[in-house]
Amino acid sequence: MIPEDHPRYRSLVMRERIADAALKGIVAMEGVGSHGRGEAFDYLIGEKTTESALLAEKTAAALFLNAKKPVISVNGNTAALAAKEIADLQKATGAAVEVNLFHRTEERVEKITSLLEDEGVTVLKGEFERLLPLSHDRALCLREGIYSCDVILVPLEDGDRCSALVDMGKTVITIDLNPLSRTAKTATLTIVDEITRAIPNITEACGRLDSDEIKKLIRSIDNKYFLNSAVNEIMGNLTNAMD
Amino acid sequence: MIPEDHPRYRSLVMRERIADAALKGIVAMEGVGSHGRGEAFDYLIGEKTTESALLAEKTAAALFLNAKKPVISVNGNTAALAAKEIADLQKATGAAVEVNLFHRTEERVEKITSLLEDEGVTVLKGEFERLLPLSHDRALCLREGIYSCDVILVPLEDGDRCSALVDMGKTVITIDLNPLSRTAKTATLTIVDEITRAIPNITEACGRLDSDEIKKLIRSIDNKYFLNSAVNEIMGNLTNAMD
Repeated sequence: MIPEDHPRYRSLVMRERIADAALKGIVAMEGVGSHGRGEAFDYLIGEKTTESALLAEKTAAALFLNAKKPVISVNGNTAALAAKEIADLQKATGAAVEVNLFHRTEERVEKITSLLEDEGVTVLKGEFERLLPLSHDRALCLREGIYSCDVILVPLEDGDRCSALVDMGKTVITIDLNPLSRTAKTATLTIVDEITRAIPNITEACGRLDSDEIKKLIRSIDNKYFLNSAVNEIMGNLTNAMD
Repeated sequence: MIPEDHPRYRSLVMRERIADAALKGIVAMEGVGSHGRGEAFDYLIGEKTTESALLAEKTAAALFLNAKKPVISVNGNTAALAAKEIADLQKATGAAVEVNLFHRTEERVEKITSLLEDEGVTVLKGEFERLLPLSHDRALCLREGIYSCDVILVPLEDGDRCSALVDMGKTVITIDLNPLSRTAKTATLTIVDEITRAIPNITEACGRLDSDEIKKLIRSIDNKYFLNSAVNEIMGNLTNAMD
């Protein structure tokens, strides 16, 4: 058991969740490594929501509220870490939730679907078709979900996937702790924050933005600003660490 | 299969080795996450041996050549990534190699021992006793190995372990890609480099240092310099990445 007063309690709990989920076959072995990379960046960012990340989260809420057909794409790591947070976000936005895996097996799709449903998520189902401009099973998605959405949240996503969605003309929101990743650079809007801090902030903002604020936030999206702010945050923390 | 001309080929091969070793029970699930954290730092360091890391590697060679009873402590990640490199370092230094695990099980000790022996390492054996100032099985080591050594290489080590060895008066060399980690800060000498780049550089330096160079390198050890150089390297790379 991790003591609750441990200074890195949350981070250690998340690490444990990923390891447990990997043993249960919800998270792929590759996902355990990805989580480790995320942890390193979160450590550098200070394991907190920065001011610019909070603005990105509000902006994500604006994009959701303005969307005609929003979708939340959920993979193994996202489900393991934030199933409950996804349920709340779905309630606040009315978005469809589609399970979409990089290391896809039918067994993992089913396990993740069950986990999400247990936490109150309504999971979109149907016949997966090869509709994304990607090779092999990475092209699979639902016609009524990812394929036809206008706004999509893809947390903890692969760079090729993110890029394919942007090429399809979608507004792509990602959550990625590495501000230098291909995903972070390719998305329409990148939230550089830890997923269980980020999603509740989006949900909360959905409940209080008015239509003027929504328009203003969407008009002023500057993803480069969000990425540079995160890099500056890391540089500041590194400078402090050297003292 | 990862194409050899992929710009991050080595990193992806190492990632695969860790995942394979985890499936075989050589690497603990926690080790897969640790490797991910290391990868993130290596990415920030530029996935190359920096000038200051090379000096740290030469200095490690000097400490090995000057030691009366050197030991190399090997855990699951180290064995999975660098068994062959450990064999060569053992030949160059005459150091004893002891398997010492944080997430210890007899089964993993045996698997790691076999893996090392298959690559030509002579593994020290005997009765493990609780001789380190640490709780539970983390105190276990060999009287003729870690307990009585004067110089010890502990690659990819936990902070408590590293600190306990320093408290016992040992000269502790670590290899750690995070220059801010407790291990990096506690060790006598920290090599901020990826293990399969670092160890061959130590081995190579063992073959060409004369006694004057050995003395000079040992006299001028300044671990803070090595850590600050690594942090500066990361900051430089981050600055370039923003352009």
